[in-house]
Amino acid sequence: MPEIKDGQALARVKYLSMDPTMRVWMADIPQYMPPVQIGEVMRSLGFAEIVESRHPDYKKGDRVTGLTGLQEYVIIDASAKQFFQKVPKIPFVSDTVFLGVLGGNGLTAFFGMEIAQPKKGDTLVVSAAAGATGSIAGQIGKIHGCRVVGIAGSDDKCAWITKDLGFDAAINYKHPDWKEKLAAATPSGIDIDFENVGGEIMQEVLNRMNLHGRVALCGLLSGYTKENPSMANFGTVLVKRLRVQGFIILDYASRFMEAATQLGQWKMFGKLKDRETIVEGLEKAPDAINMLFTGGNTGKLIVKL
Amino acid sequence: MPEIKDGQALARVKYLSMDPTMRVWMADIPQYMPPVQIGEVMRSLGFAEIVESRHPDYKKGDRVTGLTGLQEYVIIDASAKQFFQKVPKIPFVSDTVFLGVLGGNGLTAFFGMEIAQPKKGDTLVVSAAAGATGSIAGQIGKIHGCRVVGIAGSDDKCAWITKDLGFDAAINYKHPDWKEKLAAATPSGIDIDFENVGGEIMQEVLNRMNLHGRVALCGLLSGYTKENPSMANFGTVLVKRLRVQGFIILDYASRFMEAATQLGQWKMFGKLKDRETIVEGLEKAPDAINMLFTGGNTGKLIVKL
Repeated sequence: MPEIKDGQALARVKYLSMDPTMRVWMADIPQYMPPVQIGEVMRSLGFAEIVESRHPDYKKGDRVTGLTGLQEYVIIDASAKQFFQKVPKIPFVSDTVFLGVLGGNGLTAFFGMEIAQPKKGDTLVVSAAAGATGSIAGQIGKIHGCRVVGIAGSDDKCAWITKDLGFDAAINYKHPDWKEKLAAATPSGIDIDFENVGGEIMQEVLNRMNLHGRVALCGLLSGYTKENPSMANFGTVLVKRLRVQGFIILDYASRFMEAATQLGQWKMFGKLKDRETIVEGLEKAPDAINMLFTGGNTGKLIVKL
Repeated sequence: MPEIKDGQALARVKYLSMDPTMRVWMADIPQYMPPVQIGEVMRSLGFAEIVESRHPDYKKGDRVTGLTGLQEYVIIDASAKQFFQKVPKIPFVSDTVFLGVLGGNGLTAFFGMEIAQPKKGDTLVVSAAAGATGSIAGQIGKIHGCRVVGIAGSDDKCAWITKDLGFDAAINYKHPDWKEKLAAATPSGIDIDFENVGGEIMQEVLNRMNLHGRVALCGLLSGYTKENPSMANFGTVLVKRLRVQGFIILDYASRFMEAATQLGQWKMFGKLKDRETIVEGLEKAPDAINMLFTGGNTGKLIVKL
């Protein structure tokens, strides 16, 4: 176990959150945080428990989520404190919910759906709909009375989001006729695109959008692992008078409590269901990250240490 | 002269407005009005004077602007009335101002700049800045206290927008070092992009935008004459959390009076200067349209009949 000094607390990492944005952090491109440098601990969100503390705010047994990084132990000191939040122990609630529905994914879905301004009867399309964020965004759309159509990469995922999560329809984009199926599932066009993927999938959704539609631009998964970034046709944005809003939850830090309270209530009332894909062992983390881009996970992808 | 029936008025077209959107109307692509069909009169905005009327709302000598089309005479009847506005005769104000500063270009600049939400001290970049719309958008930016940088295609145009219109800087994108010059002219980054051009110019502006910047997506000139539409990288929109809003003034018809009143006041107080490029003869209209894409005009391009 690492040694700590006065003013530091030592936390043992129990769960790591695997998120597509990690791929962005590894790329030498302009982005919303400095890219991770070669030789540095790889950045990640995680759940950890304090095992030793010489810091007045933490005591042994306290539980935190934050930027643990891909490592077994993390030292929390004054400079690192802003990157961690204490979380409560709630009976019958798994620790990992603080990485998913009540963590970064839930917050992302919450603020993205706020940007989308859903109205009752709107048609919402969510890409990467069986992912940790998309699955929550779609369920929030249902809470707001939208017709919700998910796009995902397997029939199993499509079955999960329609049968278990209550999406109105799901499109497997690996079927050759997926564009026709998307058209059939959105007979009144599309009012909101909760966009996680970019590229051809995004363009097809834009093509079916109604005038004055909203695009909550959350991620562009399909471009993260390619040399060329995710391009799309701004002409569609123009002629349909769309509003495209990029967002990152860092900008909403002052409202995390508000969002988590609402998400927790929805979760308690059974309105936000989730699923986890758990991979065991820190050494599996690199393979786990790749699963996000090959469609290997359904719901929240977690590495358990 | 064409014959008219009861309920119709006949107007002689005096001036035609040449606008980049005409190129879009000619293309068989999804757009905001039905494309013009082969054999139909080519759609255009124009200024016309009533020469004969059997319609109670119009009398000989009345002046109108609207969708005259590229023709010498236009018949206004009940069905066409919604496409025409009567305009007053104002001493010392040229007729053509109703096609430019007080016409579609002024309205486009006005509502686009409303979308852009300019704040004092913001840096605004306008592409096609010496065009009819861009030149007004930039001047509205100055009225709001912005630092205004224009991008145009010749040194003469750059001189006009800085010396006559009061832009803070102008970049000739045909100079090989234009990107460096844009960077030098926007030392605090870019808060607002009033986008008329698309393509490489738009991408470079996006690259220099500040977090939470706004893009008023007015036009994508550079793509209108090409096989491939104007693509750009939505990744930039995401990581910088930009808001991109496509707009077309048709959506603001109920507010045209309000905007024209404000534009007229600014014009009267010398805050909106303009310039016209006049081409004589209806038969020159096709060549005139091409000038919009080869950079042949400065300010408002008009065909005089």
